[in-house]
Amino acid sequence: MSYITSREIRLISHPNGIPTSANFTLAQTELEPLQDGQVLVHNLYMSVDPYMRGRMNGGKSYVPPFELGQPMTGGAVGAVVESRANQLKPGDAVTSSYGWREYFIAKPQELHPVSRDLQPLSVYLGALGMTGMTAWAGLNLVEVKAGDVIFISGAAGAVGSVAGQLAKLRGCKVIGSAGSLEKVKFLREECGFDIAFDYKSSPVFPVIEQLNLAAPNGIDVYFDNVGGEMLEAALSALRVHGRIIACGGISGYNAEIPQPGPTNLFNMTTKRLTMKGLIVGDWLGHQGEFEQEVGGYFRAGKLKHKETVVTGIDKAVGAFIGLFEGNNIGKMIVKLN
Amino acid sequence: MSYITSREIRLISHPNGIPTSANFTLAQTELEPLQDGQVLVHNLYMSVDPYMRGRMNGGKSYVPPFELGQPMTGGAVGAVVESRANQLKPGDAVTSSYGWREYFIAKPQELHPVSRDLQPLSVYLGALGMTGMTAWAGLNLVEVKAGDVIFISGAAGAVGSVAGQLAKLRGCKVIGSAGSLEKVKFLREECGFDIAFDYKSSPVFPVIEQLNLAAPNGIDVYFDNVGGEMLEAALSALRVHGRIIACGGISGYNAEIPQPGPTNLFNMTTKRLTMKGLIVGDWLGHQGEFEQEVGGYFRAGKLKHKETVVTGIDKAVGAFIGLFEGNNIGKMIVKLN
Repeated sequence: MSYITSREIRLISHPNGIPTSANFTLAQTELEPLQDGQVLVHNLYMSVDPYMRGRMNGGKSYVPPFELGQPMTGGAVGAVVESRANQLKPGDAVTSSYGWREYFIAKPQELHPVSRDLQPLSVYLGALGMTGMTAWAGLNLVEVKAGDVIFISGAAGAVGSVAGQLAKLRGCKVIGSAGSLEKVKFLREECGFDIAFDYKSSPVFPVIEQLNLAAPNGIDVYFDNVGGEMLEAALSALRVHGRIIACGGISGYNAEIPQPGPTNLFNMTTKRLTMKGLIVGDWLGHQGEFEQEVGGYFRAGKLKHKETVVTGIDKAVGAFIGLFEGNNIGKMIVKLN
Repeated sequence: MSYITSREIRLISHPNGIPTSANFTLAQTELEPLQDGQVLVHNLYMSVDPYMRGRMNGGKSYVPPFELGQPMTGGAVGAVVESRANQLKPGDAVTSSYGWREYFIAKPQELHPVSRDLQPLSVYLGALGMTGMTAWAGLNLVEVKAGDVIFISGAAGAVGSVAGQLAKLRGCKVIGSAGSLEKVKFLREECGFDIAFDYKSSPVFPVIEQLNLAAPNGIDVYFDNVGGEMLEAALSALRVHGRIIACGGISGYNAEIPQPGPTNLFNMTTKRLTMKGLIVGDWLGHQGEFEQEVGGYFRAGKLKHKETVVTGIDKAVGAFIGLFEGNNIGKMIVKLN
């Protein structure tokens, strides 16, 4: 009986502030022999996502914290290499939450088979995966419709870049903020954003002024991936009865002490705004609908899946930390050997 | 032709921080002679409300600012003393926005006739007026229903005390915070609140701890009249999919510099909360429905209209400023001679 050796990344201490490589270890483990009803999967790509930062803290949140000394989990797409289950055969591509590792054993019901027709398979971690579904769910959550002026922060990220493209497909005017000129170029030239600005380039012009310039008559919808000054600027620019998708707050994820909220939150009242929190997990019942609509756009060439790829599980921690330095354009993907 | 002399309160300077009597003047004016199609109204009661503070600033908001040197406006209930319009006759009681003055001339279409059967007529400025309708609209805005645990800040105020009673009538568990033991007693003994606490009494126990004690399993709805630490405590106590009615922020109305928002606003995302801003003006189309439902409760003795009354237009400014010192239980009313 042969044993499979797999490498995996374990959290070994809770980060204070920005995570460092010292919070993690790359460990080698031997998988148990395959049992009846199980399959062995080789991960081809794994996902690193900003929301994982919250799971690295000790406290409870909407997802359980990662356990110290254990391999972390997260989205991954892999290929079945051995099967003792009828539902799957070697070569089948599957997504799972068994990320941060090279190989794993699971039951078919823990896996979601995906078509190999779409390439790269990492699209199932991005535009057609959790982050794409988050973007789609956010637009549905506040009923974004043709004619809406929507502002998206973190627009060049995995969620923002899909949200903007989908909003364009719905007939919106789309404005995005991002942290480099390269990202702005990507938003304008590849994602079809009407306006994109680099919030880091002009410290003399605060976000709020850049947003006012981009949307002199205000915005209808704000898709928040960032929090902080982006949220404050959006609260100022939103029109009466505007809507906010409270999706992410990457500007605060590494804060060592809680950060104050926007000083102009009372705009919620004076402008009768609606703010709705979004966790994509609430939308799993709509997965078929998502795959049909957004998969259709992708197949038709109407939706770009942009990714930033690093290769090797030993690069995964660096890729994760890089999310907070804005190193990714589109989805940050770790390709496994 | 006799001229009617009326006293009125004018804003003469924009307050910085807490308003003082120096920002206002009590002026005497002579009304023009009555024209055909007009009525002369003697105000019996006028309303002072926290939201008026915003109108005393120079900037635009959801209601236009008061103009310097002009009489302020606001809710009032009065009696027609002379009529040259068919729709109204002397003795008729009417509500209007011609507050802050003793007499005024208006056209019937600017007035809302009310029944004298209900007493005191000041109820039309409170439980059956703008503040009562605000409470009712807030519960409808986030669909408060039987079984909900609702926390109301500023609970002993004009809006809060009605919101709590209406929530009880809907079958909710109702928790309120207020600023004195007398108010807490009022909430418990007269308004039927399940739990009320005095947030000023125990500086050792922050609001959040008192709220956790009151609702160890969390709350479903937060009716915000206060902002600040009340909102922060509520964000912490809200359950997944909880709702926030962003109605008022009295804790910040007199701030000279913008106050930071809650440090835990990201709970909006992690708990998938919904926050909706409320301005009662959006609900005027539902006034008949409100009067039928809430008027019915009042007539049936199921709803208390509590008020704090000061007498004389010369006391109106003091009554207004007193709102920010928590001087009122229920609706602050100025009775005019």
